[in-house]
Amino acid sequence: MNLFRPLPDVGDTEVVDRLFARPGLQIDRIVSRGQVSPPGFWYDEPRGEWVLLLAGAARLRFADEPAPRMLGPGDCIDIIPHRRHRVDWTDPDVATVWLTVFYG
Amino acid sequence: MNLFRPLPDVGDTEVVDRLFARPGLQIDRIVSRGQVSPPGFWYDEPRGEWVLLLAGAARLRFADEPAPRMLGPGDCIDIIPHRRHRVDWTDPDVATVWLTVFYG
Repeated sequence: MNLFRPLPDVGDTEVVDRLFARPGLQIDRIVSRGQVSPPGFWYDEPRGEWVLLLAGAARLRFADEPAPRMLGPGDCIDIIPHRRHRVDWTDPDVATVWLTVFYG
Repeated sequence: MNLFRPLPDVGDTEVVDRLFARPGLQIDRIVSRGQVSPPGFWYDEPRGEWVLLLAGAARLRFADEPAPRMLGPGDCIDIIPHRRHRVDWTDPDVATVWLTVFYG
C-alpha cells in the first residue's frame, strides 16, 4: 500500500480510505482538493485525532484560537477530544493528503 | 511540529523522537541515514506496529518472507505483534524518515 500512488480522483467530496482499524485506533488517509468544512460547521469529535499533513496545503481553524493555522507537508498536530475545529481551506490546485489517527 | 524540518543530524545511531503517547498508543518519528539492524538481529515486538515511510528509502525483511521489501515514500505496512522483522538497508546518502505507530 502506498499513500501517494495512486491518488484517487477527487470530485465534489474528499476521499477517505481506511488504512487500519482496531478497537480504539483508526488510521485513515483523506485526500482533499479544495474541499472545506461547510459554513458554520465545527467538528466536535469525541475521539482524539492525531493529524499529519502529507502533501498539499490546508488551513485549519480551532474555535478556541483567533487565527487559523496554515499546514504544509510534515506538519502534525494532536487534536484532543471535543476540541472544536474546522478546515477553512485546502489547496484547489493540488491534492492535499492527510493522515489521521483517531484514538480512544 | 513539522516532521521534515528541521531534520536531526544523524550520526552513528538513528534518531527517535516521541511525537505522541498515551496508554496503548505511541507515535514516533525515526530518522535513519544508512543504519541497519545489527547482523542476525530480528525485532520481535510484542506490540503491533503500523509503519509509514515518509522520505528516503529502506529495505525491510520479514523472517517469514523469502525476499525483502523495498520501501519508498508513502509505503506503509502493518506489522502484527511478534512478526519478526529487520531493516536490511537504509539509504546512506539521504535521510530516511519513518513514522511508526505502536499499538496494543
